[in-house]
Amino acid sequence: MEEKKDDSTVFIGKKGVMGYVLAVVTQFNNGSKEVTLKARGKLISRAVDVAEIVKNRFIPDVKIQNINIKTEELMSEDGSKNKVSAIEIALQK
Amino acid sequence: MEEKKDDSTVFIGKKGVMGYVLAVVTQFNNGSKEVTLKARGKLISRAVDVAEIVKNRFIPDVKIQNINIKTEELMSEDGSKNKVSAIEIALQK
Repeated sequence: MEEKKDDSTVFIGKKGVMGYVLAVVTQFNNGSKEVTLKARGKLISRAVDVAEIVKNRFIPDVKIQNINIKTEELMSEDGSKNKVSAIEIALQK
Repeated sequence: MEEKKDDSTVFIGKKGVMGYVLAVVTQFNNGSKEVTLKARGKLISRAVDVAEIVKNRFIPDVKIQNINIKTEELMSEDGSKNKVSAIEIALQK
């Protein structure tokens, strides 16, 4: 499935917050109209930090277009399933 | 300011997730139509967990009506100000 060229996704991992802020700002500067942040588990709070810092410090005309939360199932190494909360924050310029 | 009787708020702190799940379920069982979860900083992911567990395991007809994120300023003991991200998740029955 081809993704629309002007949309993009940033997955939040364990790097510092500012690395993800930079990734989002770069996407918008390269012409993206919408950037979606995705995070799971304890990284959810970092996704919220990234969204707030982009909006308040770097690109004031960015709006939080939509926030979704859901539950995902992860398969662990021993084959058992674990449920984890996830968030998607769509930023729009 | 008086709050509407059928609305209520649950602040997420450092207790276990299930304590907050129970608080939300109790509010709905006592007749609340809307319960809002509020959390700051690293506790944001716990608020998402609580919302998902209430919806998926306890009250299937609860809907996530709205999610807001924002930045709050906290005054620390030495008088300096710290910014912290916050979330509000409104659940509706």
